[in-house]
Amino acid sequence: MKYPNGILKNNNNLITHSNRGMSLEEDLNQTNDYYLQNDIAVIYKKPTAITIKKVDYKNNDMITEAYFKTPSTTDYNGIYKGYYIDFEAKETRSKTSFPLANIHKHQIKHLINISEHGGIGFLIVKFSLLNKIYYLSIDALTNYLNSSDKKSIPVAYFEKYGKEIKETYNPRINYLACVEVELNEKNNK
Amino acid sequence: MKYPNGILKNNNNLITHSNRGMSLEEDLNQTNDYYLQNDIAVIYKKPTAITIKKVDYKNNDMITEAYFKTPSTTDYNGIYKGYYIDFEAKETRSKTSFPLANIHKHQIKHLINISEHGGIGFLIVKFSLLNKIYYLSIDALTNYLNSSDKKSIPVAYFEKYGKEIKETYNPRINYLACVEVELNEKNNK
Repeated sequence: MKYPNGILKNNNNLITHSNRGMSLEEDLNQTNDYYLQNDIAVIYKKPTAITIKKVDYKNNDMITEAYFKTPSTTDYNGIYKGYYIDFEAKETRSKTSFPLANIHKHQIKHLINISEHGGIGFLIVKFSLLNKIYYLSIDALTNYLNSSDKKSIPVAYFEKYGKEIKETYNPRINYLACVEVELNEKNNK
Repeated sequence: MKYPNGILKNNNNLITHSNRGMSLEEDLNQTNDYYLQNDIAVIYKKPTAITIKKVDYKNNDMITEAYFKTPSTTDYNGIYKGYYIDFEAKETRSKTSFPLANIHKHQIKHLINISEHGGIGFLIVKFSLLNKIYYLSIDALTNYLNSSDKKSIPVAYFEKYGKEIKETYNPRINYLACVEVELNEKNNK
């Protein structure tokens, strides 16, 4: 749970990017880069949270002892059309459901906070073996958590209450199209 | 330039927090924590950007080789009253001016980007030996950069075009008061 996407160990149904051509993280970085280059949005992945214990200043300032830290927030945030955007992205090899152990409780609390302060919070979940990617708003996530104490969210729930993101060439994962739909829904309420 | 605040070496007029009671970073973390606990805003410092080269999975997943990376963005971002907030914070021991070498060009470009997308971008600069802290909006910063090719910004410019932040007990550095003034100025235009 504490490993950043790029150096994940293959356990807990998580997938490493050595297992396939391109990881979700790489696809999202390419997508965010596309948004930035085309002046659509300014969204970045945060650096991996670590605690640095020792630095060798005599040897090119090499960090020689550090540890992964449980992140306080989500991995991605930024701005789109003046809206604050905040999300977490996860991959699973499960074909039936997304294990909630993949998301920290304080990350969900953080996304709820963001939503209450007027931001747009969501999850992007990739079912690698189904080749499906979904956008799930924080509202849809909290509705599920409030109505169920299950340890995972079934694919059917994403299908019904989430939005599928079809992979495209450029940008690869156009999640802002889902944000756009959500903004329209909110403005029409 | 590449060192995170907490482990800065004492050079380039930068100050380490071993030199005084409390660093600007610690004061800002306390301030952001105050904003979070009181449900005023959700603003965090990003983790230090590093490149991880080696991890010892047999020894508590200790990172044994990593290097500091030039950050792509600023150190702090988040949300306040629905507005996207983004800033960089720096300390200097200079008594006369803030050396611009302390800020990367792509960090300034990033703040300009944020501003163009409807966010609030700014600098917080502390003149440690003068015991003065200033808020400088990205507009005031770019006005200075466009009218001058000097290597540093004089204290007098901060005094005239910035906003002084008086240190208080809790929150320690109430920079959102400056954001509030800026929002009022923009809404009255």
